[in-house]
Amino acid sequence: MPVVVHVGSTCLADCRALAAHAQEIGAAAIACVGPGFFKPATTADLVAFCREVAAAAPGLPFYYYHIPSRTGVQVAVADLLQQGVDKIPTLAGAKYSHPDLMDYLRCTRLLNGRFDLLFGLDEMLLPALAVGARGAVGTTYNFAAPLYYRLIAAFERGDLETARQEQHRATELIVCLARHDFLPASKALMKMIGLDCGPVRLPLRPLSAEATLKLHDELATIRFFDWRE
Amino acid sequence: MPVVVHVGSTCLADCRALAAHAQEIGAAAIACVGPGFFKPATTADLVAFCREVAAAAPGLPFYYYHIPSRTGVQVAVADLLQQGVDKIPTLAGAKYSHPDLMDYLRCTRLLNGRFDLLFGLDEMLLPALAVGARGAVGTTYNFAAPLYYRLIAAFERGDLETARQEQHRATELIVCLARHDFLPASKALMKMIGLDCGPVRLPLRPLSAEATLKLHDELATIRFFDWRE
Amino acid sequence: MPVVVHVGSTCLADCRALAAHAQEIGAAAIACVGPGFFKPATTADLVAFCREVAAAAPGLPFYYYHIPSRTGVQVAVADLLQQGVDKIPTLAGAKYSHPDLMDYLRCTRLLNGRFDLLFGLDEMLLPALAVGARGAVGTTYNFAAPLYYRLIAAFERGDLETARQEQHRATELIVCLARHDFLPASKALMKMIGLDCGPVRLPLRPLSAEATLKLHDELATIRFFDWRE
Amino acid sequence: MPVVVHVGSTCLADCRALAAHAQEIGAAAIACVGPGFFKPATTADLVAFCREVAAAAPGLPFYYYHIPSRTGVQVAVADLLQQGVDKIPTLAGAKYSHPDLMDYLRCTRLLNGRFDLLFGLDEMLLPALAVGARGAVGTTYNFAAPLYYRLIAAFERGDLETARQEQHRATELIVCLARHDFLPASKALMKMIGLDCGPVRLPLRPLSAEATLKLHDELATIRFFDWRE
Repeated sequence: MPVVVHVGSTCLADCRALAAHAQEIGAAAIACVGPGFFKPATTADLVAFCREVAAAAPGLPFYYYHIPSRTGVQVAVADLLQQGVDKIPTLAGAKYSHPDLMDYLRCTRLLNGRFDLLFGLDEMLLPALAVGARGAVGTTYNFAAPLYYRLIAAFERGDLETARQEQHRATELIVCLARHDFLPASKALMKMIGLDCGPVRLPLRPLSAEATLKLHDELATIRFFDWRE
Repeated sequence: MPVVVHVGSTCLADCRALAAHAQEIGAAAIACVGPGFFKPATTADLVAFCREVAAAAPGLPFYYYHIPSRTGVQVAVADLLQQGVDKIPTLAGAKYSHPDLMDYLRCTRLLNGRFDLLFGLDEMLLPALAVGARGAVGTTYNFAAPLYYRLIAAFERGDLETARQEQHRATELIVCLARHDFLPASKALMKMIGLDCGPVRLPLRPLSAEATLKLHDELATIRFFDWRE
Repeated sequence: MPVVVHVGSTCLADCRALAAHAQEIGAAAIACVGPGFFKPATTADLVAFCREVAAAAPGLPFYYYHIPSRTGVQVAVADLLQQGVDKIPTLAGAKYSHPDLMDYLRCTRLLNGRFDLLFGLDEMLLPALAVGARGAVGTTYNFAAPLYYRLIAAFERGDLETARQEQHRATELIVCLARHDFLPASKALMKMIGLDCGPVRLPLRPLSAEATLKLHDELATIRFFDWRE
Repeated sequence: MPVVVHVGSTCLADCRALAAHAQEIGAAAIACVGPGFFKPATTADLVAFCREVAAAAPGLPFYYYHIPSRTGVQVAVADLLQQGVDKIPTLAGAKYSHPDLMDYLRCTRLLNGRFDLLFGLDEMLLPALAVGARGAVGTTYNFAAPLYYRLIAAFERGDLETARQEQHRATELIVCLARHDFLPASKALMKMIGLDCGPVRLPLRPLSAEATLKLHDELATIRFFDWRE
């Protein structure tokens, strides 16, 4: 199984060390979020930052991980890719965890579609497919993959109504998880289905036993355990 | 031609006066943005605000105009509609100018799809269609309607590649306008195509003659004047 | 009693109508918040907006009302005043409701201190006095003026420890009101002390009878009713 | 010279490793920013995070480094300290780089003033002194310490007008540096005065030779080289 190693940090030296390590251990690729403490003043500065990270793993494809809701790094990824293509030899694409599908569409069409653009908002997979997504990475795929495979299959055969229905189920799931704090609830769900991945780390807090029971009931109410398979 | 009158304001009394006036003059419906100065603390407070506005035009359909990028009023419109349906007899739907297509999808599926959900981000029309949009209101439809009609037609016949191509042209147009300040540039464009709607008002500033020439050249470069028709 | 009329709105024509009306009815001055819906792109655009408002009441001093927490209009007021002094003949100063005391200090020292800069964060009155505030407008002055007079008197005689103690009492009061929603709680407090100013308007909601009792108890606990006099 | 080591990171394990290392090498204390990627949902979660960091250097005083403009971690530090005092045996105080002097004042008066609250906005030193600051850490103290010593001395002898004048000079300096990008310009200034600390690291960019010359001229215009000594 190919593994993409995330190497992002607020510190360039750490990113580079992680990138070099990823290459040593045989990772398939690296991904890196924008530096969120000292934020790049311009797109060119972010390109320069990414170039240095990528250069520490010259044998691995490099993905920019766009998640401004967490990092605060605002950038049009299409501009980043366009400016980066000549400066970062290993530039492969982006993980795109942001609802701006205009920017995402522009990315997909750059340079005859040469970039790999993994979409990261599970709740918006269907609209992302519509503008051209061909890959996705997301938390809920860990416990509800069959739903999303049905969604994709329906989309591909032109059955949009079924695709919307599946996407709507996914939104019910995500609204339910978000009510309990999305990541801790997702870990609790993993354990429910027999895949205990351990607890979240601080500053996140694991769901209490009581909250976990409540989550289970709510998931049963939206019939998650039926349609996830 | 049916006219929807916007009656939003930071002041409830003004909204109500505008709503009553809209009904008197025979408007087809009213729309109202959320109050952006004193912002509602809860969704219920926003429902109460909308109910008072809607009650001043009891004979007209009421649309909530969701545009948090300008008003700062954050709300899940699906929750607003769900809570509002029993409290606002004339509640007809929303104008939705925000990229959160999860919330938008939830809106479209509420109560068997009873709400009219006019999508307001022209640059994301295609993904909105994918999740179920059946109407749209936007600035660039004033000067590039044929492009969007082609986009919709392609989408409806399942030709997504053509739909993406048209949407991509729209994004090139919008990026170009945004570079000059979107609304002033849109007014300048209206004048270019023979429909002078007058200048923008302060605090917006009309494009200078020089900037207008530059905009024209840029529009020619992306072949806007060819594909807009 | 001189009355300053607030004439701000998201609509320039409304601002101008309110300004002209204020002059007709004998107001002492006008104040105007920045337009929060279409926000000015530059300081020069905001100056141009203010100039048009001020020109509708040419006989009245004009104050810019700086409250970015509500309007979202970000500007360095010192730059606004500096650029505005030649363009707005009636420019008198600002109401400053923002914690950036660097900008505030710069305002106080512009053009030999010619501007009147009314500070608007009651919880930061003491630090504002330290950088040169000579006037203030705020909600809690309505029901706790003696506390602030004691604070000012202590500051003026160099007794900073007493001034801090009074300011600290004010912060306890403000934290208490904020816990219940600041403005509705302030209205409830006005009624408690025998000055019923009526309820807040939507989208704000009046405190419930229960919350009002709780607020009263909390105010008693911090001994507000003793030290407010 | 006592050295406080900053050990903050988005990753708890890294914070702990840095904290343990700081203790080994004989640091005087540690400081830690809030984790800005996965942000704490509550003050209690942030306290729990800090407790784990502090526990890795049990022999060193622990300072919370409050700088929400960079981390996005919003918290009332007074609440953090109050909740933390029983849970973090080494809790010594905070570095406070934020303009909310209400929260700062509350911090200074907690538990009879037991906390050490180092103020971090050089441009607001005077107002911070007014509410009780007894220590400060900041960038411009590296190259303009005499100005701030004069400011403090004037404040202490009750000569507020002189203190304001010195603070105003500091704001002129800071506005000038900010125009060129504050940190790169500060490094360039250090080199100008003979203390070359090396360049900034990506994603920040060193000032160009041209910009450095321009900065020098601007600093000369505001007479920085005279009054910094």
